[in-house]
Amino acid sequence: MADYPPEITASEEARLTEVIKDWALAHGLTVRPPPALVAAEADPRGILATAVPVTLFPSPFPKICFEQGIAVQKVYNELYASISQDEEFLARMVKEIGDSDEFITDLWKVHLRVKDEGYVQHKSLGLFRSDYMVHQDASGSGPQIKQVEFNTIASSFGGLSSQTSQLHIYLSLTEYPLIERAIPRDTLTLPPNTSAAGLASGIKEAFISYGASTTGHSKCVIFLIQEGERNIFDQKHLEYSLQSSTNPIIPVFRLPFSQIEEHTYIANGAGRQLLYTPPHLPTRTFEVAVIYMRSGYGPGDYPDARAWEGRYHLERSAAIKCPSILTQIAGTKKVQQVLASPTTPSNPSIIGQYLSSSSSSSVSALASTFTNIYPLDTSEAGMKARAIAMDPELCKGYVLKPQREGGGNNIYRGAIPPFLESVPEAHWPSYILMELITPPPVRNMILRNGELEQGGVICELGIYGTCLWDQKAKTISHNEQVGYLLRTKGDQSEEGGVAAGFGCMDSCTLV
Amino acid sequence: MADYPPEITASEEARLTEVIKDWALAHGLTVRPPPALVAAEADPRGILATAVPVTLFPSPFPKICFEQGIAVQKVYNELYASISQDEEFLARMVKEIGDSDEFITDLWKVHLRVKDEGYVQHKSLGLFRSDYMVHQDASGSGPQIKQVEFNTIASSFGGLSSQTSQLHIYLSLTEYPLIERAIPRDTLTLPPNTSAAGLASGIKEAFISYGASTTGHSKCVIFLIQEGERNIFDQKHLEYSLQSSTNPIIPVFRLPFSQIEEHTYIANGAGRQLLYTPPHLPTRTFEVAVIYMRSGYGPGDYPDARAWEGRYHLERSAAIKCPSILTQIAGTKKVQQVLASPTTPSNPSIIGQYLSSSSSSSVSALASTFTNIYPLDTSEAGMKARAIAMDPELCKGYVLKPQREGGGNNIYRGAIPPFLESVPEAHWPSYILMELITPPPVRNMILRNGELEQGGVICELGIYGTCLWDQKAKTISHNEQVGYLLRTKGDQSEEGGVAAGFGCMDSCTLV
Repeated sequence: MADYPPEITASEEARLTEVIKDWALAHGLTVRPPPALVAAEADPRGILATAVPVTLFPSPFPKICFEQGIAVQKVYNELYASISQDEEFLARMVKEIGDSDEFITDLWKVHLRVKDEGYVQHKSLGLFRSDYMVHQDASGSGPQIKQVEFNTIASSFGGLSSQTSQLHIYLSLTEYPLIERAIPRDTLTLPPNTSAAGLASGIKEAFISYGASTTGHSKCVIFLIQEGERNIFDQKHLEYSLQSSTNPIIPVFRLPFSQIEEHTYIANGAGRQLLYTPPHLPTRTFEVAVIYMRSGYGPGDYPDARAWEGRYHLERSAAIKCPSILTQIAGTKKVQQVLASPTTPSNPSIIGQYLSSSSSSSVSALASTFTNIYPLDTSEAGMKARAIAMDPELCKGYVLKPQREGGGNNIYRGAIPPFLESVPEAHWPSYILMELITPPPVRNMILRNGELEQGGVICELGIYGTCLWDQKAKTISHNEQVGYLLRTKGDQSEEGGVAAGFGCMDSCTLV
Repeated sequence: MADYPPEITASEEARLTEVIKDWALAHGLTVRPPPALVAAEADPRGILATAVPVTLFPSPFPKICFEQGIAVQKVYNELYASISQDEEFLARMVKEIGDSDEFITDLWKVHLRVKDEGYVQHKSLGLFRSDYMVHQDASGSGPQIKQVEFNTIASSFGGLSSQTSQLHIYLSLTEYPLIERAIPRDTLTLPPNTSAAGLASGIKEAFISYGASTTGHSKCVIFLIQEGERNIFDQKHLEYSLQSSTNPIIPVFRLPFSQIEEHTYIANGAGRQLLYTPPHLPTRTFEVAVIYMRSGYGPGDYPDARAWEGRYHLERSAAIKCPSILTQIAGTKKVQQVLASPTTPSNPSIIGQYLSSSSSSSVSALASTFTNIYPLDTSEAGMKARAIAMDPELCKGYVLKPQREGGGNNIYRGAIPPFLESVPEAHWPSYILMELITPPPVRNMILRNGELEQGGVICELGIYGTCLWDQKAKTISHNEQVGYLLRTKGDQSEEGGVAAGFGCMDSCTLV
């Protein structure tokens, strides 16, 4: 796509800016205004919204790579469902991460407590997102996607991503054909994107699969949230989608992570049903069928012992968790690193054993999305990786990642050696060293808070998947690929969370 | 509906407030924030939106009255299409309003200039809204609707009204059944409301009816707007609705009233096609098929001679106007007063002559919606009305209205005598005196800028109609009733414009 997106005039920029922000505000492609735009005290009742940062044009994305991501998603769902069932493997991973990552260790302790008592709920729901970048190596071979990470908890932006695709489709019908260097509609290939409806249908499957209430109370779904969430409309679109597809409508309540114990309790008896009394309905009680977590993924949600008790309380309950602690731990970088480790005769591919029912071509399609990831432990591979990480030249091709979800925690390139020097060596094994993926150059324009940024961008593709399985019976009852996310950031910035103010929403035009 | 809406607890209030504001922000049931909420200079790029003021519950509205309004709308459409064709009658009305209302006189002068030259476009589009209140007289007879006014220009809120109905339907499925004094879903009768799609389809009819472009340029629709419009999303929903129902999509442009002559011109030749060059596309030209006016209805849009030239420029063009000047003048209070004047042998009903093709039962159904309206001229009826208006006691049952659209211009009850004393008597004929309609008491709660107001409310029902006719052939090619508006205000306030900060959006539950 030479000359894409086209250069546009200042007045075309102004026009697109206006059309996009108004479309976004009219369609809930919105967030609560960032503090830089509106101070929190200026909107104490949370009655304002602003357009999400978004690209002016869909970004070109290799069709073969997009299809590769779509094709492997159900295999990935199966892989992570299987890993979640392998407690022994996960225990080893936690041990290898070691005491240096207290958060993972504490999560594991919660699992062990519930295991001692015995789990009453064996069904587990995953709303996953596998993130990729396009990698084009110097050899001249075709572009391939390489996995950046696999999210097993709080995979976000599915509610806004289908809206973003709608926005770009709208613009392709109304605005792009009119600008001076017009983009004819039929030169764009905009894949369908039903991320909001797809993720909602995963929750619905789990809700049904939970079975009838046995406490005499109506069933409900809880969205476990962070207070003061700015990205609330992303979550709300899932809720509306879930409700509009069910009759009678499924009651959905938003429960702040810090209020778990205040508003829920476990029913007497062996069933351990999770009961919820909404704060606004003190005389009503609901039996919680599904807990969908949009919080609890990082240490910030666990400021004290009480927060950990809250998580324990949920984990031991009969509600279907999205995710369970085992599934959350399956999403650590350490697991990703072990899966991606090159196989040798002495170290046979471990993904094959988790995908015994999949064809070998599916397994190798999945494996082809791995990039090189190394441990920083004291194994042979780990010692080699340490040498790379501490080398001021070699380190430039790598990123150092902790076992942590959400943006803002990664250490890039030349910053790696001084960072590692500042960390006790005993903690190094909790990090992984990942080869940087070098995507082909793409240009686009980003509209952020009413202002345009233009230049080279880096696109990250996320493919959503939903999976419902039984930990005990080791069966998968639901496995779907459901829409995608394209997140784009300026190629000068190295962290890509849209809500964090760095990246923006985008959609693909396949090339 | 005794005990409706139910009394709710403080925490139920908080819950409904949160659910409603987030639903509104996620679905474009929004306006640009009022200055009291966000100073204009704090949002120079117009990238914020806030929820429109709305009732917590749909207001009870007599089913028989709602159906009465629906039933007469197409007859009203026909009536106003016919009046628009009766230039002689309208000339008399303008004369009777007299020089005291310069605005109407100036509008008429524009019509006369175009008439001299000869109109090239005989098709005329009306997007009408007939506004009513329920009247229940002391006699104990059933409730009836009485017309407050008939809007022939810039009938607003159709874009937000269907959204408001959706909101209340959503709440009736999710929230009302759960509150302590639950409202079961099946006790509410929420009529369907497709106001946005319906009004858009009226514009589409006119667009098609305009015929093929004869200048070689693509056709377009212009929304003629006021700059700095806060109620923009109301208009935007019509635009999206129009575009989503057409393939290829109809280009829609928003043109500020003050920029008519800057961006449009009339093609050379007898056809007088209106050509538009969007400011952001200086090399593109469109032939304007339809001008939909959301401005130009009051003197504020005509600050100088140039603005009047702009209106003249549009009026003489081949674009189908919504509305033409004749249709705009048909919507004056004076016309309403004359139509509503009681018939006597010496003053036969004039509506019959405009509705010759309608059944006599349709005509009397329409006439039954009239309330008593009197002129303030020097006729016998006018002299009687003057006596009432100046009487400190009798005036309490009346409202005094100028020939003006939009809220904020009416004089109520005891304020009438001192007001009239302040106006030169020669200007009195430009006012009409209207019996106040006394609606039955209704209670509801209004959510405005995140805060709740509770108490007695007054509801005003608007029924939308679309009509396309030929002024010359005197034929109607399209005549539909399309959705409704319920606007509600506290019974202590006397002006009901939602955007003006007094009233709010509502929907009906039929009782």
